[in-house]
Amino acid sequence: MKTTAPAAPLVPMTTPPPNPLEDLSRLLASDMAETNKLILERMQSEIPLIPQLAGYLIAAGGKRIRPLMTLASTRLFDNDTDRAYRLAAAVEFIHTATLLHDDVVDESNQRRGQASANAVFGNQSSVLVGDFLFSKSFELMVEDGSIEVLGILSKASAIIAEGEVLQLSIQNSLETTLNQYERVIAAKTAALFAAACEIGAVITDQSAPIQKSLHDYGHHVGMAFQIADDILDYQSSSEELGKSIGDDFKEGKMTAPVIFALESAQKSSSKEELDFWARTIGNKDITDNDLKQAQSLIKKTGSDTKTIKLAENHIQKAHNALEILEESHIKSLFLDLANYTLHRKN
Amino acid sequence: MKTTAPAAPLVPMTTPPPNPLEDLSRLLASDMAETNKLILERMQSEIPLIPQLAGYLIAAGGKRIRPLMTLASTRLFDNDTDRAYRLAAAVEFIHTATLLHDDVVDESNQRRGQASANAVFGNQSSVLVGDFLFSKSFELMVEDGSIEVLGILSKASAIIAEGEVLQLSIQNSLETTLNQYERVIAAKTAALFAAACEIGAVITDQSAPIQKSLHDYGHHVGMAFQIADDILDYQSSSEELGKSIGDDFKEGKMTAPVIFALESAQKSSSKEELDFWARTIGNKDITDNDLKQAQSLIKKTGSDTKTIKLAENHIQKAHNALEILEESHIKSLFLDLANYTLHRKN
Repeated sequence: MKTTAPAAPLVPMTTPPPNPLEDLSRLLASDMAETNKLILERMQSEIPLIPQLAGYLIAAGGKRIRPLMTLASTRLFDNDTDRAYRLAAAVEFIHTATLLHDDVVDESNQRRGQASANAVFGNQSSVLVGDFLFSKSFELMVEDGSIEVLGILSKASAIIAEGEVLQLSIQNSLETTLNQYERVIAAKTAALFAAACEIGAVITDQSAPIQKSLHDYGHHVGMAFQIADDILDYQSSSEELGKSIGDDFKEGKMTAPVIFALESAQKSSSKEELDFWARTIGNKDITDNDLKQAQSLIKKTGSDTKTIKLAENHIQKAHNALEILEESHIKSLFLDLANYTLHRKN
Repeated sequence: MKTTAPAAPLVPMTTPPPNPLEDLSRLLASDMAETNKLILERMQSEIPLIPQLAGYLIAAGGKRIRPLMTLASTRLFDNDTDRAYRLAAAVEFIHTATLLHDDVVDESNQRRGQASANAVFGNQSSVLVGDFLFSKSFELMVEDGSIEVLGILSKASAIIAEGEVLQLSIQNSLETTLNQYERVIAAKTAALFAAACEIGAVITDQSAPIQKSLHDYGHHVGMAFQIADDILDYQSSSEELGKSIGDDFKEGKMTAPVIFALESAQKSSSKEELDFWARTIGNKDITDNDLKQAQSLIKKTGSDTKTIKLAENHIQKAHNALEILEESHIKSLFLDLANYTLHRKN
């Protein structure tokens, strides 16, 4: 199955590339089917509420990007991908557990365009089923038996939790720097992307530099993915994104578009703009028209363009990370996937 | 340090035995000091809220029973206990993570006689710091490097989460059987006691029957410990137990004293008693005097005595489990500890 077609040319940033996730899903359809079988099998329990709740989220049209990246990064080096199924399932379980706990922490009512699990099953069940899936992910890793992979994913899990706590700590704080924002998203999102990609190189016994290149690629794709998500929260409509837009705004999350807009207000000493951000993000005093006003300020100050540049920087670094690899079909899809992060609509 | 003093005679159930936890703590003081050092070291983070919250709970006068059991079960077989420190710390982190999530799920305001972490730091932080400690526990196990121990503790963690979900599912359900109750406490409490004890036999390379004997001992001590806890919730005053009494009652938890009292009401066809339990436990319609009434019904129907008998049965099984071991000071303290579960005041 390993194809060595020449790398696709880099798609210019201005034209939307085709969705490489669909290509990857097609290419790895049988691997993904095995992984899905394992996911369904391991979320079972004699306690009916567990598969009900886990299934609600897992069947909720998730794109399975992270397990797909584990499968693809394994296929980059080896056609014998049996070991990758368990680990791809483990990666998806960690992700699902994180989503369940996130929605409780954010008090979200929507996820992927439908009511979030905590809205349907309650916060209590979401916390506990998250814990169950998290434990199950470690059971899957134990079955695989690699201490190295266990180390990568336990470290990533600790980093994710730390990032979520940091995010909570700086919520509503107008002093948040771009550097702190990047630390948060590196932890809460990019760490699992990095681990998911690194695993493929580890279980196929690649050299340390190649393991690092896959790790770095995953990290930068994860960064671009999250930055794009944070732009979308001020841009797309609720139907497109599959979650309520303006959530970050309502929660007072200090994301890149707001940090840039605030910086611009400070530079121009615009009292009106500074007061607006202090009232809404700082004090959570939000009225009906404020989201529109936030969107318009972000546009007016060019903060959306600056945020896109930030993501493009990570996309470029994701490309650079893969330079060490020989050309192949999967490598070119990985490059396309990096570009695609900025063009996805949901 | 391994002492082979003759086993202490079984303390008759009627006179309160001395507290063997204090004896164990004294005997294993240097092991426990090393473990505590690791615990404090590994709960650190650059995000100040993490050590603040973790430290609040970990310094809150916990008895450290579970890590003590890992250390003691290692010392039963070997004087070289260095490996046990990391794993004892891992066991305590899993326990602490569970407590943090439990208090969120139970909406508790008190834990060990002081405000619970979620009451002070909020539910959001408690969920996330729980996740952090859980991940850290796996990092500690990975450093130790035993896939077998990783398997034991990841399985125990999944069982704990399942037990908590089952408990939530049967809350307020008057149909709950004694068997279901035992399944819940076997999962939510006894599984970690069993794992904590088993680990000592595993890392000292004991035979499968000895590993099983330690596992079974831990299981039955955990069962007796939890049953005693469930009696105390209807008996001791808030100051003694270090948590609000009557919590189980208010939450509609179907614990042994209630299951026996309800059974008795059914046998005697007492409409008044049946109505009382249906209103309070079934419908959570609780007024000021109801806890006193519940306590009095539990006493009148001999449900407290039946619950104590249930615990005594597990204490006997804990004793039986250790028959395979040669006599030693730690073995005799383990036997005392089993008896002590029913005599502790908090």
